[in-house]
Amino acid sequence: MALIVQKYGGTSVGTIDRIRNVAARMKRTRDEGNQVLAVVSAMSGVTDNLIKMAKEISENPSERELDVLLATGEQQSIALVSMALQELGVDSASITGRQAGIMTTGSHTRGRILNMDPTLMQRFLDEGKSLVVAGFQGVTPDGMIHTLGRGGSDLTAIAVAAALKADVCQILTDVDGVYTCDPRIVKNARKLPEISYDEMLEMASSGSKVMQSRSVEFAKKFGVVFEVRSSLNDNPGTLVLEEHPNMENVVIRGVSIERSQARVTITGIPDEPGMSGRILGALGDAEINLDMIVSNIAHDGFARHSFTMHSSDLGKAQAALKPVLADLAPTAKIETEAGIAKLSAVGIGMRSHSGVAATMFKALGDADINIGMISTSEIKIAVTVEEPRIEDAARAVHDAFGLDKVPA
Amino acid sequence: MALIVQKYGGTSVGTIDRIRNVAARMKRTRDEGNQVLAVVSAMSGVTDNLIKMAKEISENPSERELDVLLATGEQQSIALVSMALQELGVDSASITGRQAGIMTTGSHTRGRILNMDPTLMQRFLDEGKSLVVAGFQGVTPDGMIHTLGRGGSDLTAIAVAAALKADVCQILTDVDGVYTCDPRIVKNARKLPEISYDEMLEMASSGSKVMQSRSVEFAKKFGVVFEVRSSLNDNPGTLVLEEHPNMENVVIRGVSIERSQARVTITGIPDEPGMSGRILGALGDAEINLDMIVSNIAHDGFARHSFTMHSSDLGKAQAALKPVLADLAPTAKIETEAGIAKLSAVGIGMRSHSGVAATMFKALGDADINIGMISTSEIKIAVTVEEPRIEDAARAVHDAFGLDKVPA
Repeated sequence: MALIVQKYGGTSVGTIDRIRNVAARMKRTRDEGNQVLAVVSAMSGVTDNLIKMAKEISENPSERELDVLLATGEQQSIALVSMALQELGVDSASITGRQAGIMTTGSHTRGRILNMDPTLMQRFLDEGKSLVVAGFQGVTPDGMIHTLGRGGSDLTAIAVAAALKADVCQILTDVDGVYTCDPRIVKNARKLPEISYDEMLEMASSGSKVMQSRSVEFAKKFGVVFEVRSSLNDNPGTLVLEEHPNMENVVIRGVSIERSQARVTITGIPDEPGMSGRILGALGDAEINLDMIVSNIAHDGFARHSFTMHSSDLGKAQAALKPVLADLAPTAKIETEAGIAKLSAVGIGMRSHSGVAATMFKALGDADINIGMISTSEIKIAVTVEEPRIEDAARAVHDAFGLDKVPA
Repeated sequence: MALIVQKYGGTSVGTIDRIRNVAARMKRTRDEGNQVLAVVSAMSGVTDNLIKMAKEISENPSERELDVLLATGEQQSIALVSMALQELGVDSASITGRQAGIMTTGSHTRGRILNMDPTLMQRFLDEGKSLVVAGFQGVTPDGMIHTLGRGGSDLTAIAVAAALKADVCQILTDVDGVYTCDPRIVKNARKLPEISYDEMLEMASSGSKVMQSRSVEFAKKFGVVFEVRSSLNDNPGTLVLEEHPNMENVVIRGVSIERSQARVTITGIPDEPGMSGRILGALGDAEINLDMIVSNIAHDGFARHSFTMHSSDLGKAQAALKPVLADLAPTAKIETEAGIAKLSAVGIGMRSHSGVAATMFKALGDADINIGMISTSEIKIAVTVEEPRIEDAARAVHDAFGLDKVPA
């Protein structure tokens, strides 16, 4: 008998009717001869409401207490889904994060999973129960309630699947799977049957917001094969797994875009050891996530650094840079550019193929699109373009690599 | 430094403003040089809402899952009250039932406290924190969430006060204390400075719904002195404690009434051993709570039983009795009377005073009020009267014992 872990997000349990649908889908999975365990989020809206109450009390509520407050959302969902299962005649039990043995560490509201003790879940499964586990939460070793931050329920599902050695982990969501590109932009984008963890990670960090990177990393680390599929139909989705010889043999798996980017360029930096570290450190201290980072030495002997970030961080970045530059490099000048977007082409095939960058740049050139910054990894080439041209750019690159066609 | 436990009900934390008031009152208690720990209920309305959702899913939802669902109400309150405290600059922490070490047993939704492990609370208190503990909940020895049923938050407060050896346990509520009689009925009723556990128990089981009997029993068992007082002002309330020589020296401490009672009388029961037990057993099996029970042998040699119960149970009682009487005592007849009420006079002084019943019956006779059934305990005399006369009866007895006057 296979054990299937299913993860349902807040929209999937957003109303009593939808909770009934989740229970019905779980029952169907069970009736097909499987054990089934669902990880569920809070009903959509519930978390926002709780945060609103907290904000009425305090502009900056304690994160420890926010965790205690927010964890109630998932606890309500698990009880209701379990009731709905029982109403369908399915023997079931709700399981809180603590009961699931999810031990966490790190700051409140941003917990990381430290280890798992699935004893209780295993006992209940052995008794023939279907389980409904609270996503997004765990407890610290000293028993404090802890939430896992954005995408936490995906992480719970992967961790539970790993701990119970589940046969399948289905991430049920509002998209059908992972596509070669966003189908709203590229009409002939194709749903991928499989994608490797590394490709999924590059896609996730390049704007394909199907899943947070850390859930994919966790799955890769523990070898959990998972499937991204729709909660609205029974179509097969996309399997995410370690690369294997029978995977579709392509150079580029997909193209992803990220809008609302901004660039900061600092010129006139004395070329001294430690200088870059102190400048990047100032941005890190200001909690600005840098994306692309490009440095080189100009002909005048001064260094030149460019970084991209979300454009909403641009003001904060300038404020953070001013004092450190005044102190370290009075010759330095800051140049900024907003209104850009990033295009990434991702594929493990890139490792063994040359000419990928050339194909990509030619496609963009033919479409009369200027390339700004360029950065590459072993399996990704990313470029910035002017934001108004990003969709044209995505279509051009998608076409150039023939991503709409099933590979031979 | 004294440790003061305060219990706030759902109305006291029913809005964000009221939560702020609770925090302010706790801070005041702390500023006076005390350690303070509050036990709070769910915000009023929250529990009803959760039950409503459960009922939408199932007419008869699993009690295990109801516990998981309902426990979230108190968990939300503790987080919000703790945030409000921190907003006032008070170092505080919320504590769930589990974290408070409240170990329970018994059926789901009707848990009983088995034992307490206050280690975490003590550690936090030693660190100088004020605590906000979730009422109404605990966990079973195998880690399942458990709620304590009606009045559960009072029970939590008493248990926490016992475990931490608190100096004072204040039950903050919407009444000012325990009165000699309901002041809405008897205008000159007097607030009692003190009342003994046993008197409080007899008052509670006689319709004075200030507190559930089991909380008073728990307090008596563990010697927890508690005070019933208003959450709306700073007036002293009523201390509930073991009787002591300096207590106001009275025969009757108070008078309480209970409306909507009904009487069932069964006549013509063969006077055989075990007969009463089987008849009462049938009513117990039907989950009917009997209040007064009076039996005697009539001149014809048959036994005659009368019991009172809440009038809403009358139909259920008749249905339960019919088959058992047809089987055991075909000669028996059932007589019923609704529209009656019960008047109880309670006082430990009764033990050492004679003539109490005579005074009470004379007062009722002078007021032209007929007495139905009579039952007595060591410290209580209860009678039934016609419901429309119950307020007159209460006033007559209150006057006859001079309960409005402070005893010499």
